[in-house]
Amino acid sequence: MTSPSATPERYPYQNEPTWSKLEKAIARKAFDAALGQELHEVIQEAKRMANEIQKSSDLWDLEHHLTQRRKEIDFKYDFRGSRLTDVLGRLLYENRLGEEDLRGLPEEKMKSIRSFAQFLGDGAA
Amino acid sequence: MTSPSATPERYPYQNEPTWSKLEKAIARKAFDAALGQELHEVIQEAKRMANEIQKSSDLWDLEHHLTQRRKEIDFKYDFRGSRLTDVLGRLLYENRLGEEDLRGLPEEKMKSIRSFAQFLGDGAA
Repeated sequence: MTSPSATPERYPYQNEPTWSKLEKAIARKAFDAALGQELHEVIQEAKRMANEIQKSSDLWDLEHHLTQRRKEIDFKYDFRGSRLTDVLGRLLYENRLGEEDLRGLPEEKMKSIRSFAQFLGDGAA
Repeated sequence: MTSPSATPERYPYQNEPTWSKLEKAIARKAFDAALGQELHEVIQEAKRMANEIQKSSDLWDLEHHLTQRRKEIDFKYDFRGSRLTDVLGRLLYENRLGEEDLRGLPEEKMKSIRSFAQFLGDGAA
């Protein structure tokens, strides 16, 4: 006898979009390029800030800045399928990728991605 | 009626060395000079590390290094009277100050400071 609550759900995340292997490969390429570019920017910032350090408060400002940037990047670049639409939408909103970088994704996913980018744009306006 | 345990102790830290104003001024000068020198070293390290960053792991190594150094320095440079003998002893052990920088402190305090430096030296040997 099995109680209903102990029965494994066959579809635990019914609303989660599924990503085919090809779609994931397209997303991964755009995601990695945006991440690489953002890390490159943080490296350039760090070099500039370090170069300009004159007193200890500048030093700890650099440390604080790097910690903040690391946390932001860790949070932002989440490749799980459950978050990927929003993640790509944010990168689109931030101009870290363009729609052309996502060529090959089905229109349904592009709509969701554009919609999240639009949502962020509306919030910032 | 007052129970003994509720009576405020007149000397709550009986074993804590007391520091006169003059002694504190001598200690402060040596302490500040050592701290300034150590911060200068960390700044130079940070500039060198930042300059050599090539990939993101180098960037996060710099962040981690700065966090560690900040915590070490916060812990090490504690000017409370209750810790000052050990703090100066550690700086003496690390050659961040010399006995000549503490000229004017009474021999009793110098003995305690030397003794802690010796203790650290024995531990490291």
